Amino acid sequence: MENFIFQNGTKIIFGKGTEEQTGSETALYGKKVLFHYGGGSIKKTGLYDKIVKSLNSSGVDFIELGGVKPNPELSLVHKGIDLCREKNIDFILAVGGGSVIDSAKAIAAGFYYEGDIWDAFVGKGRVEKALPVGVVLTIPAAGSETSTASVITNKKITSKQGMEWPVLRPVFAIMNPEVTYTLPAEQTAYGITDMIAHVMERYFTSVENNDLTDHMCEAVIKSIINNAPKVLDNPEDYNARAEIMLAGMVAHNDSLNMGRIGDWASHGIEHELSAFYGIAHGAGLAVIFPAWLKYVSAKKPEKVIQFASRIWGVEYNADNPQAAAAEGIKRLENFFRSMGLAVRLGELGIDNSKFEIMAEKAVMFGERGNYIKLGKDDVLEIYKLAE
Amino acid sequence: MENFIFQNGTKIIFGKGTEEQTGSETALYGKKVLFHYGGGSIKKTGLYDKIVKSLNSSGVDFIELGGVKPNPELSLVHKGIDLCREKNIDFILAVGGGSVIDSAKAIAAGFYYEGDIWDAFVGKGRVEKALPVGVVLTIPAAGSETSTASVITNKKITSKQGMEWPVLRPVFAIMNPEVTYTLPAEQTAYGITDMIAHVMERYFTSVENNDLTDHMCEAVIKSIINNAPKVLDNPEDYNARAEIMLAGMVAHNDSLNMGRIGDWASHGIEHELSAFYGIAHGAGLAVIFPAWLKYVSAKKPEKVIQFASRIWGVEYNADNPQAAAAEGIKRLENFFRSMGLAVRLGELGIDNSKFEIMAEKAVMFGERGNYIKLGKDDVLEIYKLAE
Repeated sequence: MENFIFQNGTKIIFGKGTEEQTGSETALYGKKVLFHYGGGSIKKTGLYDKIVKSLNSSGVDFIELGGVKPNPELSLVHKGIDLCREKNIDFILAVGGGSVIDSAKAIAAGFYYEGDIWDAFVGKGRVEKALPVGVVLTIPAAGSETSTASVITNKKITSKQGMEWPVLRPVFAIMNPEVTYTLPAEQTAYGITDMIAHVMERYFTSVENNDLTDHMCEAVIKSIINNAPKVLDNPEDYNARAEIMLAGMVAHNDSLNMGRIGDWASHGIEHELSAFYGIAHGAGLAVIFPAWLKYVSAKKPEKVIQFASRIWGVEYNADNPQAAAAEGIKRLENFFRSMGLAVRLGELGIDNSKFEIMAEKAVMFGERGNYIKLGKDDVLEIYKLAE
Repeated sequence: MENFIFQNGTKIIFGKGTEEQTGSETALYGKKVLFHYGGGSIKKTGLYDKIVKSLNSSGVDFIELGGVKPNPELSLVHKGIDLCREKNIDFILAVGGGSVIDSAKAIAAGFYYEGDIWDAFVGKGRVEKALPVGVVLTIPAAGSETSTASVITNKKITSKQGMEWPVLRPVFAIMNPEVTYTLPAEQTAYGITDMIAHVMERYFTSVENNDLTDHMCEAVIKSIINNAPKVLDNPEDYNARAEIMLAGMVAHNDSLNMGRIGDWASHGIEHELSAFYGIAHGAGLAVIFPAWLKYVSAKKPEKVIQFASRIWGVEYNADNPQAAAAEGIKRLENFFRSMGLAVRLGELGIDNSKFEIMAEKAVMFGERGNYIKLGKDDVLEIYKLAE
């Protein structure tokens, strides 16, 4: 186990009707608030009205900035920063999923940042100060509601990059599973894939002796697997929606990372797919993670065997230990397929024409991964395994 | 799943050599510090000197108050409050195990409290404000390093009571597993029992549909079971000590309690044993928990069967499902025995002469428990099952 520092002070307000606390929680931090949201689905579902009512009843003065897209864009972040400076905003309320929250965090950091906040995404700037961000979560997936991370896409240069700074951790996260009843099945499945990937990125580490956090990672994935078919069969199964929403938070709140170093290669490899083809992050992960597992299990099968055995119930067979790894990967693929997801690039209509450039971009800041370090040629092989 | 609010902002600084950060962390909060500790074992192990050096090198002014005993006493808390007021203390550094930390929290609360702080332990007073408390943990057990709780014994009236207030959560917890190498085997075993009990108190709930936190509870207990024999066989096994220390924190940081209501009857029933006989809390829990499980499994076996099956690997048998519960309890007892602990009151030299008065005191503030509600007669039966 590695030395570590862990601190996550986000206040989680979880359960039925909790969106009604948005105004009172926001009022603890902000007098002049930016209400940030996405493409307007919150207006259709009625959440928008509830938020406005709650803010008004707590006497919170706010302006709005909607229009955040999946794979949130730098251009809107720039617009948000200008707006916040112009209107003397002191708090950002993000109502949405990971894209809205990440956009809010980037604006919050950019507010105090001299120069272009994109610099901080490409390792050229430090974020020491940010406006406080509060969240009303609508999509369980990214875990951004309690994380220090923000991922933004710069369309001008086809680049999707992330940054992590302690000051980006939201001060509160309001999570009502009922709000997720109206999520399309596809988006539910993408979110579930993203949260499983977040756990797996932490599970696969070169750091040995992490017995407790290994078991905790396995617990989270097992529970997600249990509840995924329930929410897809019955979108209004409160308890199953609650389990999925809670799992998405735990998967990325850093508690599963105590004493270990995550891998994160698959995320990096997927980000190129999202950047080049505009596909949903979860859709890309369902393709890339099995391919990554195949690639690493050929070189270092041990943890993949543990993954297969403890999570998927694959029996260890002394005559052919590697077969357990292969069977575990197959069960993961079957699980993704059972949610209606593609597990090959071809099924997404993506051919091999950009493998070379994507592999190059994936390692533009150096090797990827921790369980196994990956250079450009390794990434290229993984794209081929995903073909 | 129940609605819940979760917030735990304690900064965990975990790993080798981390006690050297005591001074710099303390200096973030305090200018005039009370350095609170126990019977002096930290002087034998050299930890005391390291702390003093670290405080001095960060320019922190401090006074000392040692002498905290297991089952920490109200009389020393009163002394600490007087001292803090007299010396204008603004921060309390607790270096020790749960007793020292709980004593520090009681002093921290008492500093601002008008009247006797004992009132707050018996439900007659509210704690809205407290001095900040920082921790250097020496005994993994109570989980007080990140909890909102404090348990204090009032010897004058033979009463051991707890209180919980958000302001009592320590601001930092420095945890170096190496510091625990010198713990006597007995104390290591008591601590392990205490942390397992903390998980079980949360695991056994009448609230249904807590799949994720059930799995997380099981993960923590499984890891404790894996690592307990390792630390007892080789007290200087760093990784196993680290797993146990981390598990003790996770067991009580409230993350396992998200969406559920804990039982806590066994803790209440045990507190009477500690108060009347002065036995270690962990020693009492190893006796009371199996007895409690036997009592509740006769009335409501389902969760005990799950406990047996998922944690202890007991196979469910359709012909006799209750047998799995009994086998799980037996394996828990065997585990306690394997650590050298008694699992019957008789083995601790405790007879039935005080069962009546202890049962009465255990329910003096009302029924105990959540998985099953227990009145005085139920508690009496549990003492008898523990005989």
